[in-house]
Amino acid sequence: MSKTVAVIGGGVAGLAASAALNQLGYHVLLYEKESSTGGNVRNWDRLFPSGRHAAEVITELESSVTTDTEILSGTTVTSVSFSNGNFHLQTSTDRVGVADAVLLATGFELFDARKKEEYGYGIFENVITSADFEKMFSLHGKPLMADGSEPRKVAFIHCVGSRDEKVNKPYCSRVCCVTAVKQAIEVREALPGCEVYNFYMDLRMFGSGYEQLYKEAQVKGVSFIRGRLSEANENRLRQVIIKAEDTLASKPVQLTVDLVVLMAGMSPPANTLPILRSLGLSDNADGFADIANAHTGSTLTGVKGVFVTGTCTGPGNVGESVNSAKAAALQIHQYLRGD
Amino acid sequence: MSKTVAVIGGGVAGLAASAALNQLGYHVLLYEKESSTGGNVRNWDRLFPSGRHAAEVITELESSVTTDTEILSGTTVTSVSFSNGNFHLQTSTDRVGVADAVLLATGFELFDARKKEEYGYGIFENVITSADFEKMFSLHGKPLMADGSEPRKVAFIHCVGSRDEKVNKPYCSRVCCVTAVKQAIEVREALPGCEVYNFYMDLRMFGSGYEQLYKEAQVKGVSFIRGRLSEANENRLRQVIIKAEDTLASKPVQLTVDLVVLMAGMSPPANTLPILRSLGLSDNADGFADIANAHTGSTLTGVKGVFVTGTCTGPGNVGESVNSAKAAALQIHQYLRGD
Repeated sequence: MSKTVAVIGGGVAGLAASAALNQLGYHVLLYEKESSTGGNVRNWDRLFPSGRHAAEVITELESSVTTDTEILSGTTVTSVSFSNGNFHLQTSTDRVGVADAVLLATGFELFDARKKEEYGYGIFENVITSADFEKMFSLHGKPLMADGSEPRKVAFIHCVGSRDEKVNKPYCSRVCCVTAVKQAIEVREALPGCEVYNFYMDLRMFGSGYEQLYKEAQVKGVSFIRGRLSEANENRLRQVIIKAEDTLASKPVQLTVDLVVLMAGMSPPANTLPILRSLGLSDNADGFADIANAHTGSTLTGVKGVFVTGTCTGPGNVGESVNSAKAAALQIHQYLRGD
Repeated sequence: MSKTVAVIGGGVAGLAASAALNQLGYHVLLYEKESSTGGNVRNWDRLFPSGRHAAEVITELESSVTTDTEILSGTTVTSVSFSNGNFHLQTSTDRVGVADAVLLATGFELFDARKKEEYGYGIFENVITSADFEKMFSLHGKPLMADGSEPRKVAFIHCVGSRDEKVNKPYCSRVCCVTAVKQAIEVREALPGCEVYNFYMDLRMFGSGYEQLYKEAQVKGVSFIRGRLSEANENRLRQVIIKAEDTLASKPVQLTVDLVVLMAGMSPPANTLPILRSLGLSDNADGFADIANAHTGSTLTGVKGVFVTGTCTGPGNVGESVNSAKAAALQIHQYLRGD
């Protein structure tokens, strides 16, 4: 009889791992807290650097999973224990799952931009997040202000909930810089007359094709201002007044724009820590699942039979999550064969 | 009879892929152009962010490969062709290899710092590269000037052969920023009295634990200056005079230091392109092996049965290469089973 692996989380990493485990001959119990799989990527319109539609990636991953994967949607895993040679998964639906190995693929949550109160998210109607921006592009193919009109000035604010000790997020979220540049280009393409500004600290365009995107944005007239936003306010026209220090020009900047897009960082999801604790595992300094080592053991934990993959171990992009998921599947294969 | 996979390149990715392929039941022909495996990592002393010894990582990977891997060291693959259902590999030793699938893991070459003539590498004795620095640390556990004495001022220059269109390297090499920060800390620890400067454009500390390293460097007294070096010269004391523009303070900087470390970027190795061409494949805009797509097909090429992994597809770190190698092995498994 084939062995069973419990995969917790049905985002990009969970789906890719389930498909790989099926391919290796394992039965998979895939736990997804939402009503459908796809995770955070499902809320995205297009992905950097190619502009490929996120929905296409999700569909591809979903169809790579075989009937050997039992998808338990709407089910949150609350704790995992080990007894009689098996892992037992407690869930929100009272059904207890039994598995020979467990893979955590619980992903990330977007940083709640309301926690940066001074930026006005949830207070000013024309301050939105990068996720809101994607939703708007899926629906309308262009950015719009709250009253439905087209903005003439848009500002992207990098590092919202990243590299910020004040909100206990000292780490870099990796994908926001390139997402902001992608979104800035999308604004210029959809509304060629619209002025676009990016407020950044360091432009972390580190991946293949990212630097080209950065150049493309510059060619397309996007302005880049090195400086961290101090605060945002609203005027009587419902425009947003942003204040920052231009750290390259060493002078304060004040700018009135129609729309502000906050690049929300990646935070560990609330339901990961209880699972880690139930297994006697801990989170790392940033609150993500701890890994055995960054070089050869990025999918291993301190407990035999328990593995981790994707963004529950720290910020990452889709391609990294897919590779990490396949690496985890192979590591589980090795463990279950007793190699 | 088990099928055979030819793995070209015995660095981190090639070793990890060979081990994974063995685990999946395949015979591996591992071609390594040098006399021993380990690739570029073999020349490194310690790896970021943990400071783990590179030799330990190589040893772990080498011992994970089984007797089902035949290591052909000192052998360069010059071209690959497909006929009669098999791939045929032409090599520098005249022996022709036959395989059912091919994995390119040819890795990277460090950018030749002499090409940035104005930085004086190969001209001034106290201008070294990041690789020279590692060698020195392996040998002496501290940085030394050419005359064997301890430096009192060291400058690290980021982006040497990266983000530089003048030398046809427009892309970011990902790992140099964090390597520079790691090395800067190592100098401060080995020689606490030594002043250490980092000249950077954007500090791309995007990985787990990187931002902590950056903070650690600041706490340990490393100075960071945002600016690109324009030139380096030597004075009569064999010290190096460096000129840059401090883009944060918007003023020119001139600094006399005892030792300059050039953070050489990652370039595609010379022997990859002929192999790609022989297969009808091409390189990407940066000169690295092209991949099917960055999201779900980062180990696939445009030719069935030919796969790619690791830094021959673009700059990356050890953990990424290991995950990519395992993902490639699984993808090859899927192909060879005809799934």
